Amino acid sequence: MTALANSKTYANAQLDALRAAINARLTELAAGSDYAPRLNAAVAHSLLAPGKRFRPILCVLIAQEFGGSYDAALDAGCAAEMVHTASLILDDLPCMDDADLRRGLPTAHVKFDESTAILGAVALLNRAYGIIAKIEELHPQIKIDLTELLSRAVGSYGLIAGQIADLDNDNMQTDTAHVEQVNALKTGALFDYTILAASKICDLKHQQTESAAEFSRQIGLAFQLLDDLKDRVLSEAQAGKTIDRDIGKATLVALRGEDGAKTTLTQYMAAADRALLAMGVDETSPLRSAIAYQFKMPGGA
Amino acid sequence: MTALANSKTYANAQLDALRAAINARLTELAAGSDYAPRLNAAVAHSLLAPGKRFRPILCVLIAQEFGGSYDAALDAGCAAEMVHTASLILDDLPCMDDADLRRGLPTAHVKFDESTAILGAVALLNRAYGIIAKIEELHPQIKIDLTELLSRAVGSYGLIAGQIADLDNDNMQTDTAHVEQVNALKTGALFDYTILAASKICDLKHQQTESAAEFSRQIGLAFQLLDDLKDRVLSEAQAGKTIDRDIGKATLVALRGEDGAKTTLTQYMAAADRALLAMGVDETSPLRSAIAYQFKMPGGA
Repeated sequence: MTALANSKTYANAQLDALRAAINARLTELAAGSDYAPRLNAAVAHSLLAPGKRFRPILCVLIAQEFGGSYDAALDAGCAAEMVHTASLILDDLPCMDDADLRRGLPTAHVKFDESTAILGAVALLNRAYGIIAKIEELHPQIKIDLTELLSRAVGSYGLIAGQIADLDNDNMQTDTAHVEQVNALKTGALFDYTILAASKICDLKHQQTESAAEFSRQIGLAFQLLDDLKDRVLSEAQAGKTIDRDIGKATLVALRGEDGAKTTLTQYMAAADRALLAMGVDETSPLRSAIAYQFKMPGGA
Repeated sequence: MTALANSKTYANAQLDALRAAINARLTELAAGSDYAPRLNAAVAHSLLAPGKRFRPILCVLIAQEFGGSYDAALDAGCAAEMVHTASLILDDLPCMDDADLRRGLPTAHVKFDESTAILGAVALLNRAYGIIAKIEELHPQIKIDLTELLSRAVGSYGLIAGQIADLDNDNMQTDTAHVEQVNALKTGALFDYTILAASKICDLKHQQTESAAEFSRQIGLAFQLLDDLKDRVLSEAQAGKTIDRDIGKATLVALRGEDGAKTTLTQYMAAADRALLAMGVDETSPLRSAIAYQFKMPGGA
């Protein structure tokens, strides 16, 4: 094994260990009361399904890079994962994308029923706010800052606005700028919460926070584009979710073709990396390996 | 006009003025971004439909009684109204109570569509947290306390657990204690948030807060029982909402009959009033007139 391959293996093992810690914390946080066992089961089904946990990983690795509290970043990141899971449950509903498969498992409304799925999603969003409020390591004002970041990321400047725009997105009469704007809402906003929450936890300086925001913007666009590319090239079994829901929708893949989209992805990734370095992230940082790992395209792309 | 009738008219006029101020504030708070006009329209349709605004009224009147900030109580109460509206939108969905009429208007999924209704409800819950975070008059720790109170009131100790229990409530093999427990979750929990938030805003002493919690418990039970009674005695047009959704469900009206339920309601109201007096509320307080007004049964009951 070469030194480079060895170092990659080590970085991946560290990442697996972090992912295991995140899964353990999510399991603790998902445990609910005895009043609603069916609800708890639905929440656990969706939240604890195999996921890459990229948002909490980012939050924790940024905190580690800049000396912020690990426990605070873990919980702030788990809150993002809960909101992300809530958005997946809602996106998959019959009245939205009507998907049967997610993270390799039946979607919540298929496994349980529609009302339980909806209430489970609402419970996850609600729990996210409760978790932020309870982070012991943070000053109350920082918790309020995180609450405001999350409310903005979910609301009319984020996920919900993006989901409405996405549901309306059924024609090709659009351009790159519009697609990027919708992607920034439906995907980018929760990265903004995650990365700016980590910046608050680390008390980053204004200039570093500006670079963090730019990093977030580029990584969010890259993440959505990678998702659109996977939707095109993977089978349903490989993707672990219902695919082809984007046919007829304006995505960058539809606008530019597969090769053009891959070029754009490379540009987003390069811009994200420049922003990371501007933040002051070390060239050998685990943060950069984690991102490289996350963005490995299946099939070598 | 007698002195008593004159004083009642004055109290009602004050209450109407407060309700108008609450509606004006809700209108401001409901204004969203330009990204999702359809979502904003759905939120405004449900939130600004004619409502009694009992929760924000309670919050503001408690604050006025005990010298808490009016502006803070107004916003904390509006947050409760938003969560209440969100719960109504979800309860009315086809997969839940499948209701067409609410507050005298078509329900959100009828007026718009199901996905917009669901996203509107989630937007309202999310906005409620954002509003609490932005209350300028409160110390950050008090805002965190309100956030935790709301998260508990919505989550597995509150509205969501109550809604699950209510959906499962399709048999009569139950008793008063179980019905009261479900009512405490589905209705009482949001009163707990409202009344304990007001107590925090006023920095009430421990003993007063205990009395406030007892007041909340009794007024919540009374409110749900009044709702069940109205469901029995009012026409759909009078109630302004789809009724008879509770037929076959175990309510106190079903368990005890109309007369027995009215006796129980009187008992809850008396207990609520004793708790109010124990808090230190004056006999002539507008808070007591507001409650009497809210609990006026149509038809003189």
